[in-house]
Amino acid sequence: MLLVEATWKEIETYLLDSQAIVIPIGSVEQHGPMGLLGTDAMCAEVVARRAGEIGGFLVGPTLALGMAQSHLAFPGTISLKPSTLMAVVQDVVASLSNAGFRHIAFLNGHGGNIATVTAAFSEIHAQRSLQQDLDNLNLALRSWFDLPGIRKLLADMYPKGHGSHATPSEIAITQHLYPHAKKMAPLDPQIAADGRFTDAHDFRRRYPDGRKGSDPSLANPEDGAKLVEAAAQALAQEMVRYTNK
Amino acid sequence: MLLVEATWKEIETYLLDSQAIVIPIGSVEQHGPMGLLGTDAMCAEVVARRAGEIGGFLVGPTLALGMAQSHLAFPGTISLKPSTLMAVVQDVVASLSNAGFRHIAFLNGHGGNIATVTAAFSEIHAQRSLQQDLDNLNLALRSWFDLPGIRKLLADMYPKGHGSHATPSEIAITQHLYPHAKKMAPLDPQIAADGRFTDAHDFRRRYPDGRKGSDPSLANPEDGAKLVEAAAQALAQEMVRYTNK
Amino acid sequence: MLLVEATWKEIETYLLDSQAIVIPIGSVEQHGPMGLLGTDAMCAEVVARRAGEIGGFLVGPTLALGMAQSHLAFPGTISLKPSTLMAVVQDVVASLSNAGFRHIAFLNGHGGNIATVTAAFSEIHAQRSLQQDLDNLNLALRSWFDLPGIRKLLADMYPKGHGSHATPSEIAITQHLYPHAKKMAPLDPQIAADGRFTDAHDFRRRYPDGRKGSDPSLANPEDGAKLVEAAAQALAQEMVRYTNK
Amino acid sequence: MLLVEATWKEIETYLLDSQAIVIPIGSVEQHGPMGLLGTDAMCAEVVARRAGEIGGFLVGPTLALGMAQSHLAFPGTISLKPSTLMAVVQDVVASLSNAGFRHIAFLNGHGGNIATVTAAFSEIHAQRSLQQDLDNLNLALRSWFDLPGIRKLLADMYPKGHGSHATPSEIAITQHLYPHAKKMAPLDPQIAADGRFTDAHDFRRRYPDGRKGSDPSLANPEDGAKLVEAAAQALAQEMVRYTNK
Amino acid sequence: MLLVEATWKEIETYLLDSQAIVIPIGSVEQHGPMGLLGTDAMCAEVVARRAGEIGGFLVGPTLALGMAQSHLAFPGTISLKPSTLMAVVQDVVASLSNAGFRHIAFLNGHGGNIATVTAAFSEIHAQRSLQQDLDNLNLALRSWFDLPGIRKLLADMYPKGHGSHATPSEIAITQHLYPHAKKMAPLDPQIAADGRFTDAHDFRRRYPDGRKGSDPSLANPEDGAKLVEAAAQALAQEMVRYTNK
Amino acid sequence: MLLVEATWKEIETYLLDSQAIVIPIGSVEQHGPMGLLGTDAMCAEVVARRAGEIGGFLVGPTLALGMAQSHLAFPGTISLKPSTLMAVVQDVVASLSNAGFRHIAFLNGHGGNIATVTAAFSEIHAQRSLQQDLDNLNLALRSWFDLPGIRKLLADMYPKGHGSHATPSEIAITQHLYPHAKKMAPLDPQIAADGRFTDAHDFRRRYPDGRKGSDPSLANPEDGAKLVEAAAQALAQEMVRYTNK
Repeated sequence: MLLVEATWKEIETYLLDSQAIVIPIGSVEQHGPMGLLGTDAMCAEVVARRAGEIGGFLVGPTLALGMAQSHLAFPGTISLKPSTLMAVVQDVVASLSNAGFRHIAFLNGHGGNIATVTAAFSEIHAQRSLQQDLDNLNLALRSWFDLPGIRKLLADMYPKGHGSHATPSEIAITQHLYPHAKKMAPLDPQIAADGRFTDAHDFRRRYPDGRKGSDPSLANPEDGAKLVEAAAQALAQEMVRYTNK
Repeated sequence: MLLVEATWKEIETYLLDSQAIVIPIGSVEQHGPMGLLGTDAMCAEVVARRAGEIGGFLVGPTLALGMAQSHLAFPGTISLKPSTLMAVVQDVVASLSNAGFRHIAFLNGHGGNIATVTAAFSEIHAQRSLQQDLDNLNLALRSWFDLPGIRKLLADMYPKGHGSHATPSEIAITQHLYPHAKKMAPLDPQIAADGRFTDAHDFRRRYPDGRKGSDPSLANPEDGAKLVEAAAQALAQEMVRYTNK
Repeated sequence: MLLVEATWKEIETYLLDSQAIVIPIGSVEQHGPMGLLGTDAMCAEVVARRAGEIGGFLVGPTLALGMAQSHLAFPGTISLKPSTLMAVVQDVVASLSNAGFRHIAFLNGHGGNIATVTAAFSEIHAQRSLQQDLDNLNLALRSWFDLPGIRKLLADMYPKGHGSHATPSEIAITQHLYPHAKKMAPLDPQIAADGRFTDAHDFRRRYPDGRKGSDPSLANPEDGAKLVEAAAQALAQEMVRYTNK
Repeated sequence: MLLVEATWKEIETYLLDSQAIVIPIGSVEQHGPMGLLGTDAMCAEVVARRAGEIGGFLVGPTLALGMAQSHLAFPGTISLKPSTLMAVVQDVVASLSNAGFRHIAFLNGHGGNIATVTAAFSEIHAQRSLQQDLDNLNLALRSWFDLPGIRKLLADMYPKGHGSHATPSEIAITQHLYPHAKKMAPLDPQIAADGRFTDAHDFRRRYPDGRKGSDPSLANPEDGAKLVEAAAQALAQEMVRYTNK
Repeated sequence: MLLVEATWKEIETYLLDSQAIVIPIGSVEQHGPMGLLGTDAMCAEVVARRAGEIGGFLVGPTLALGMAQSHLAFPGTISLKPSTLMAVVQDVVASLSNAGFRHIAFLNGHGGNIATVTAAFSEIHAQRSLQQDLDNLNLALRSWFDLPGIRKLLADMYPKGHGSHATPSEIAITQHLYPHAKKMAPLDPQIAADGRFTDAHDFRRRYPDGRKGSDPSLANPEDGAKLVEAAAQALAQEMVRYTNK
Repeated sequence: MLLVEATWKEIETYLLDSQAIVIPIGSVEQHGPMGLLGTDAMCAEVVARRAGEIGGFLVGPTLALGMAQSHLAFPGTISLKPSTLMAVVQDVVASLSNAGFRHIAFLNGHGGNIATVTAAFSEIHAQRSLQQDLDNLNLALRSWFDLPGIRKLLADMYPKGHGSHATPSEIAITQHLYPHAKKMAPLDPQIAADGRFTDAHDFRRRYPDGRKGSDPSLANPEDGAKLVEAAAQALAQEMVRYTNK
């Protein structure tokens, strides 16, 4: 069930049976010469929604914006500062826990969000740790590419050229979802360099077309469909313990 | 053009001709027994995107979450505090202006966002007012229901029972967009009470099913389609001065 | 009764009969070549205090500083950032509600404060919305120039040249209150331009002497006195429902 | 010259000769059974304004609200949190220094403000310390009761019963200024207890009528007038080095 | 060289040759019935200082406090909220980079700090990403137990019972450093349970003596000495690229 | 007893008898050509720990970093902004009071911390003042050089050349504690200038070698030992009222 397509009474009824919800979280950031700016949000959203169908749990609105500071030298990137993203996560959790949700999982599409969302969870728990004993509140963060079995699948699909940013896997998913928006571009070199970086100036100096270690020309929509299904199955499996009271 | 479906190079090219962008902003909040929780974001998104087609300007990602504190007593509502929403708007504007955008319009679907987004603009301008003279930065907030001609159209469509929350007009738009998610529910009274309120406890005491002044059974998808087109034409017209350099 | 001229025991006694208070809020900002920097605070204070005499309610200390970012390019302007003004409003409300006040109205003299004070109210209510059910807390914002009947009176007094900043009406009030501080200055053009603006740099470029749409030479102290009385009567009338328990 | 009674052009002219300004800062807090809630702001304002007359320097708007947390258990007290007061001081200084002021002195009427205002100065300087070398910015805090010669005068006037809160000296000043608001109340004991305290609950338990160490019945308006003149002369003397460039 | 035992002139000289510094960061939190509250800070400090001797680089003051919210139900734990720890890291980096440091590595002793310190780095970089192109600033976080070779060494030393909190390895290091503070306590069960947790209430319910998965009776000072040396050698090796310009 | 060398069970036992703790707080900042950057933290720590031995009370971890903005133009200084230091103090107090401590004294080694720590205490009390009546929480700040008898001792030891920064007394203490780190440097002039300052740029212009009013060549380790003992005895005496329930 999609929260945004439900009425409040339907949510009230859902809460009688389950206090679990999944919130997709992505990022709007450059994904190289072929990748869409919305790639990370699109991937998180489709995996969470398909998993919700499989597992019968509620999926909340997609948090499209994430922490993308290192991509800010490429136009189109829209980044929340860590402190802002923490505030967003805190408000989302406060709203949901106030309504009775007790198992709130964020399904993530962007590696750059992990530290910040984890810190936000600690900020929430820190406040609770200093209050009188409350109902337990389970907060979880799962990235679709780290769900059980997915890293293996990626290695099989892309023995070379997967890389760490603007990867063929995430671009395959967007090709599957948005065929009208499939982009082609010459790649030079075919597989981009990879490695460390600091801020956006440093990132663009090192990775001038925005890719890190990837050859996105390896992407095709069929693989995208497979990846969505595999990740959704894995997520649905993880949610089993929460969705039945 | 949709920013989330573009590559950074396409945005770079777009910026050569125009520095204008529209960001839809909504809210995820109860909309009475028939209305979808995502109504406000859906309405803002469709109007902005259709206007972008008409006017040839760029439309950014939808900010689904808004300031919905007064609806928090109804489950499914997810509200950002004003201070959080201000931080989000500041970060969005910082990212876009850093990339070269100079005309950033927020197309709004929720009355409760207006004060906070306006305050966020002032926070941004206040910082600039104390810095050395910078390029001018135009920030605008337009609610679809306040665009030129729309209030008149609403009065014509709904001589009675439009009200101020969970209105037939916004529900008509969602029926047009998401026919599979059309909800029916008995309404008692047919037209809800309207008036003032303070916090969420007070809101639910006064408006127990979530509506304010509205009879959402008046909604139909055809009217929704007309409203979208009318608002999009009005918005495209307003953007003309910005989209051509 | 003026809070600043009362003892705490007098307030304790007052609270037995009424939980209502009015807080004047203004701004210290340029008001063109003839207007005083303290105009907005002066106007708010005199209207609130006269209304308090008429209606028998308590009037708190004047918050002299407001959100005046767009005037910062003119010396003498002192502006609070929106986030600061929100913190001030939150602390004022926390102090007063802690003491037992339940109806706290801000009588405003500056249009630029409206969004920020409204956002501050939402921040306060947002916190309460997530707490257990509390006594209701009524927060209201009224600008003296928007009180019932005042816009009509202004249109009658100043058929031309009222404008939107450094208006003859507010200057008339300060001439009535502070005759020793009446200022004269040549005006060129006689009626200033009006329109939109962004930050302080933009404001001063567009409105080089600080006026917007106004001809302050139309001001005279007699009209000022009439405006104060009319606005005070209107405010006292609005407060009736609160001042008697 | 009073800033609030000046036009921006008068301030522009003033700045050609002097970059000094004094900002009175007080508090709105209980002052025992005889003292006015606005005492601290009233005292700071009158001393600063009289000193401005003597010394020919500019006096800004009075910051009526201060840090009064320990008085919050007495109704009528309105306290800013330290973090809020720091933000106010930062914004005031930013506005004034942006306009060209270089010597900004706060004339204080409330001991409880000292640590917070001093911390705010450090916050301002800390930011400047990490920026490129800027024009020097002098920030000063002076409490009227600590100006040269005043402690001696107080000891002479009140050999016993001056105390540390709701003192006869500050009440004398308000009797001088606001004779119509002179309050009388029985005092038991005649001289209140004095000592330490933590929060507002602790304060009221220890000092049930709000006084600390004082016998405010010693106050009379003539002494108030003398104190104002002495403090104003001392402040004017301190400002000499700043007012002439 | 230890920064705290140097003069500013010695640092000025050091900066001529190297812009690298290591800052130890720990936590003060319960470490089970045998572990010292300061364990994490002690371990980080000794490894960093020994590595500094080996590698000839500067070691700054130890940040003793970290993010320890989940241990707050055990007395003696002192935790910084994530937002506070982020502010501390930001200030430390601002001070050091202002002085000319360009390679700032935090040597960490507590897993719970990782997300927050990483988020703090992103907050710093986010600000820089929106400023004009600056000198690059390298920020690194290394936990002593994750340095190259250490996990292998731990597995060899403790084939069973190492666990994830109050581990024999960290306790061994403190036994080596502070033999006078060696504590013994009965352990029941010998190897504690391990697993997930949320806030401090949940942690104490699940892990009543504070250990997670560990048998700290396996600790001895000799192993502690070996661990310090191994980790210090690994850290010194990592710093090589930074310490020579 | 040192908290960092205790287990949580030892703290639990301690709390049965006493709810008092002392937290040393220093600063890492330049101390002139002979003084160590860690001087203030070293002095606070040794006095607190020796006093704890004398008085049998608990001493917590040293907060090494303080508010040192005015020293930031000298490399090696690491300063927390006042707002950051306030957050640290708030978190330390929240952790300790949550565990049952009721008498929390900060033993300070740096004058620049006083205003900020005092403001932090007020922020804590302000929050408590607006909550329901709670257990009293005693927060105290004592600087070692202001403890009873110490100013007299300093005047006797250093009739000339003590000054106000990089003083022979604090350097003597570090010579006593860290004889291996004793530094010698030519001083010109022998006694440095003293006086006011604003930010770090101003400080370094006025005091080019970092000293204020001092002749640190007067320092010797024997005097350092005497100062530690005298200050520790004075602190232990002050703590008597708290350490016995």
